[in-house]
Amino acid sequence: MNGENSALLTDLYQLTMLQAYHREGMADTATFELFVRKVPPNRNFLVAAGLEQLIEFLESFGFSDEECEWLGTLGYFTPEFIDYLSKLRFTGDVHAIPEGTIFFQNEPIVRVTAPLPEAQIIETRLINIVQLQTVIASKAVRSVLAAPGKLLVDFGLRRAHGAEAGLMAARAAYLAGFDGTSNVLAGKSFGIPIYGTMAHSYIMAHDDEADAFERFAESLPGNVLLLIDTYDTLEAAGKVVGLAPRLAAKNIVIKGVRLDSGDLAELAKSVRTILDDGGLTECTIFASGDLDEHELSRMLTAGAPIDGFGIGTRLTTSQDMPYLNCAYKLQEYAGRPRRKRSKGKENWPARKQVYRRYDDEGRMLHDVIAKDDEPGLEGEPLLRQVMAGGKRVGARETLADMRDRLRGQLGRLPHDLTLIEKSSAYAVLISDGLQRLVQRMDSAGL
Amino acid sequence: MNGENSALLTDLYQLTMLQAYHREGMADTATFELFVRKVPPNRNFLVAAGLEQLIEFLESFGFSDEECEWLGTLGYFTPEFIDYLSKLRFTGDVHAIPEGTIFFQNEPIVRVTAPLPEAQIIETRLINIVQLQTVIASKAVRSVLAAPGKLLVDFGLRRAHGAEAGLMAARAAYLAGFDGTSNVLAGKSFGIPIYGTMAHSYIMAHDDEADAFERFAESLPGNVLLLIDTYDTLEAAGKVVGLAPRLAAKNIVIKGVRLDSGDLAELAKSVRTILDDGGLTECTIFASGDLDEHELSRMLTAGAPIDGFGIGTRLTTSQDMPYLNCAYKLQEYAGRPRRKRSKGKENWPARKQVYRRYDDEGRMLHDVIAKDDEPGLEGEPLLRQVMAGGKRVGARETLADMRDRLRGQLGRLPHDLTLIEKSSAYAVLISDGLQRLVQRMDSAGL
Repeated sequence: MNGENSALLTDLYQLTMLQAYHREGMADTATFELFVRKVPPNRNFLVAAGLEQLIEFLESFGFSDEECEWLGTLGYFTPEFIDYLSKLRFTGDVHAIPEGTIFFQNEPIVRVTAPLPEAQIIETRLINIVQLQTVIASKAVRSVLAAPGKLLVDFGLRRAHGAEAGLMAARAAYLAGFDGTSNVLAGKSFGIPIYGTMAHSYIMAHDDEADAFERFAESLPGNVLLLIDTYDTLEAAGKVVGLAPRLAAKNIVIKGVRLDSGDLAELAKSVRTILDDGGLTECTIFASGDLDEHELSRMLTAGAPIDGFGIGTRLTTSQDMPYLNCAYKLQEYAGRPRRKRSKGKENWPARKQVYRRYDDEGRMLHDVIAKDDEPGLEGEPLLRQVMAGGKRVGARETLADMRDRLRGQLGRLPHDLTLIEKSSAYAVLISDGLQRLVQRMDSAGL
Repeated sequence: MNGENSALLTDLYQLTMLQAYHREGMADTATFELFVRKVPPNRNFLVAAGLEQLIEFLESFGFSDEECEWLGTLGYFTPEFIDYLSKLRFTGDVHAIPEGTIFFQNEPIVRVTAPLPEAQIIETRLINIVQLQTVIASKAVRSVLAAPGKLLVDFGLRRAHGAEAGLMAARAAYLAGFDGTSNVLAGKSFGIPIYGTMAHSYIMAHDDEADAFERFAESLPGNVLLLIDTYDTLEAAGKVVGLAPRLAAKNIVIKGVRLDSGDLAELAKSVRTILDDGGLTECTIFASGDLDEHELSRMLTAGAPIDGFGIGTRLTTSQDMPYLNCAYKLQEYAGRPRRKRSKGKENWPARKQVYRRYDDEGRMLHDVIAKDDEPGLEGEPLLRQVMAGGKRVGARETLADMRDRLRGQLGRLPHDLTLIEKSSAYAVLISDGLQRLVQRMDSAGL
């Protein structure tokens, strides 16, 4: 199918609008911005992600001959317009806040300046790419905050929404501070550490649980993590203790056990006691099964001796908030700011920048959204140029860079924003210049 | 990236288990089944979808040389195992309930019988493929039930979770009874009707709204649907009325208007009056913006004169239930039934079939889950063989077939299950033979 590489992965209206623009000769410079209208009620902040994939999409944007031919059969488009489409490339400039940056409502996270048709035609896939990873990174970071120092692994590929969702969720979770993923392709594609050992079916395919443990350990002696909840968790923990000396004689160490059902916190305590009493004090306990940041927080508060967590479905579907109220809106065309006034969906017009200000201790104080050309604004500008004339500007960032960036920013967040519970809102101010512009436009009926 | 075609789109533990099976020579016949443990609280039934993509995946399954080479660098796998992996294909049998079939908790929807390693290695992507479309079809059908006779169009690509999610959501929604999608690639890939005209940016890029309407109509004279909420919806409706005679002189008919913000039901009433008073009684009203089945039901109950709906994000993310509690579990190995007893995750063992029974009026009465070889079961068997020896059996079904199947089944559903509100549960019985088997296994401690 290769859908992710097709320029047809778009809404029909992008093409019908483009034909109208083409017919009208409207190709002046336009600026569109992608922003999130509101930080959702169950998030205190958002984490930008997906920019790398967006740049790759824009650099390679174009319709194939076969796609153009098919479009010609629809009856909507003139041959002359199809010919124009076949040559269309993205030649614009892009500014964006770097991946791993914390951001808030109404702040432009991607700003595209290009001839109107180019800036328009990319809308659907641009949102599709950036929203997904931003949703997942913003969810994943909450587990990172809930379980400091614990091993966190993405287990969510199977119930992610398709192939790309699984792959990009692994990337976004790692960017947000996870230690790795079970997703092998994500390991290959992005260099993310991969984790995993066995499923229940492995135990069930054997006639005897202890026998299954032993055979598995012999097959993968360097990475023995045994799943102990298929039948009776505490009995299985006893079997692990019984098996350890025999494996030790073969120089095989049981690194850990995994719990995947039942009351994980209570079971972990009992299993810890069994392992410790059996001399396996170095054997770790890893938990999985319907986990999210709230479960992690609850278990760790209850003192559960769990060393790591596999977090799956609720992470990769961002179950409690599977989308963001985001929009990619025209802010300026032919040198004039533009403003949508649809009820509840008004936008801040013009080409913009976001400035972040810190207190004397380096903690984040507030952000200011301002016109890009507005003079005298203090603070750290968040948007940087990442493409010029359709080509990447500067070096490609590594995932390690992005992880470091986010880790640094988490350390500068006001404390209550780092909690799982909803905190008071972070202040996002609108600059004087931008407020004056809106007043001027509204009073002129523009 | 082409992730959807890679056998590496899997969890690492599938590979580590396979190496253990390979080392132990465990390659007897295994049967795994995919089922959903519970119908979610906000669904009355589920709709099976995604089987076609699963068959395509299984028919083409295999590791490339480059993938094998990369796996060899990880340090987990022996060269001998990698060589085995490079030759691995799926050669098994698959039974499944056809796409567009209504189903309930614990009913196997896909049953795979194959040598153990083959049946195991496909697990992650099998779930990933089938769950996504089943989630979306089960969500989409609720809008179909809430708005009978209305035009329903999927608008959700931009906030779907990536490329494959957007594409497959369009397919699943169409299968469930939607009329089409805005997703151009879905139109090309699956022959789904595509819809769409203009965005707010088109209006905003023009200096005058009425001028934008006129130019657009001239560019796409056969499909004039005008977006009227960019500034003031009622004023814009007046502009449409004013424009109509001038366009009529050019033989251009305004087919409809679209509302995308504000109180859609109230606005629709006012707009209808303006259009009717202006003689545009044939001009339809189409609504979009944060819609789902509850909004549709509310607006139509309130008598909103809306002819069609564009349903986006809440559909393609299945916002209120973005995943199913589904599992793919070993049910039989080497001729012996297998049963997981993890707390809350017990499975019904053995190779199974589902029988559906109807009352005298042809309405669905209850389903029975039974052993596949259990004699004397009455009712319509739901699982059919779709693959034999790794190859498709029978003709490829069309989306039209699947739509017809679902439409027919909706007509036979008990009435309260067709409501948006939660109904009483549909009865899914467990056959005597299956119950006896479980008692036997539990008392033998198997």
